[in-house]
Amino acid sequence: MRILVVGGTGAVGQAAISGLRDGHEFIVAGRKAGDVLVDVMDEASVASMYEKLGRVDAVVACTGHSHFGPVADMTPKQFLDGLKDKVMGQINLVLLGLGHVNDGGSFTLTSGVLSYEPIRQGSNAAACDGALDSFVIGAAIEMPRGIRINAVSPGLLEVAAKKYDGFFPGHRPVPSAEVGRAFAKSVEGAITGQIVRCE
Amino acid sequence: MRILVVGGTGAVGQAAISGLRDGHEFIVAGRKAGDVLVDVMDEASVASMYEKLGRVDAVVACTGHSHFGPVADMTPKQFLDGLKDKVMGQINLVLLGLGHVNDGGSFTLTSGVLSYEPIRQGSNAAACDGALDSFVIGAAIEMPRGIRINAVSPGLLEVAAKKYDGFFPGHRPVPSAEVGRAFAKSVEGAITGQIVRCE
Repeated sequence: MRILVVGGTGAVGQAAISGLRDGHEFIVAGRKAGDVLVDVMDEASVASMYEKLGRVDAVVACTGHSHFGPVADMTPKQFLDGLKDKVMGQINLVLLGLGHVNDGGSFTLTSGVLSYEPIRQGSNAAACDGALDSFVIGAAIEMPRGIRINAVSPGLLEVAAKKYDGFFPGHRPVPSAEVGRAFAKSVEGAITGQIVRCE
Repeated sequence: MRILVVGGTGAVGQAAISGLRDGHEFIVAGRKAGDVLVDVMDEASVASMYEKLGRVDAVVACTGHSHFGPVADMTPKQFLDGLKDKVMGQINLVLLGLGHVNDGGSFTLTSGVLSYEPIRQGSNAAACDGALDSFVIGAAIEMPRGIRINAVSPGLLEVAAKKYDGFFPGHRPVPSAEVGRAFAKSVEGAITGQIVRCE
């Protein structure tokens, strides 16, 4: 398969690539590094990336930052910025990419467990993750040409556990290999409209 | 209780008011009609409404339109406009209203069943509903001063069934009294962080 991995230089993107079988052709896209540069929040940049690449069999989206902070201090702008970054970035990749994915291909988005496993300061992230999961459920039933769409919903990654020390009490850090397997289920399997939890 | 019902002139708002006990003081807010006019997408308008009203015990948000259309034809702008209207409108009411709700008061948002019961053309609505549900789950654990937050997630309302004929095959139309009871659970009960489904 010819697989575009957007955010492919990050921890989740690297886990996705490692979890997929040998023999695929990977195209890594990123904001600052990769085979192709893209700003997923900029429609023109996303459209131009797809034009350059031609057809792909799978798009894996591992991008997005949401706003972390206490709900009592959060401003509407901070909240909307989170939606624009984590939600719209990945949505842009789907809506603008549909015409560039081969029949029977797939999209795999990256959400996260905060939508149902709340942590302090995580209400914007929760909303973003919930929006992505439900979009996948809603969109899967009407994707054209047999194209599938799923979300991988990872918990705290082992490789990031030190960075987020104290924010995820009791969360079992997830080995990158588990996250990789979740992406394989979506990209190489036949499922659609599924949230593949790895926690 | 002193209860602000935003979108109180619509079908869901009216169901909410009917479902709550007699003896409350209701303040109905709406874009074009009501005791107080407000544009929930305009921060200044929301802030000004709260300033005028003074303290309330409960805020009930029954506002928001998302974009309906096939995913294959949807533009990023249409998708973002849905998020701004249905998600940010209600989020604005929470973030800007927190300081105006009495200790132990509550917010009740309105999401919908499309986040987990997909229909054709409903992928943006699904994302909006999922974002609101997960925000409630994420925010409830850190709301200050004992303030609670829940979402009522209604299915197709009986009173709207004719209007949406054909879009919700097999969905059982929900009597307004059921929707009213869901709001009573949230406003008059003690639950928080809950999605009260009425389908």
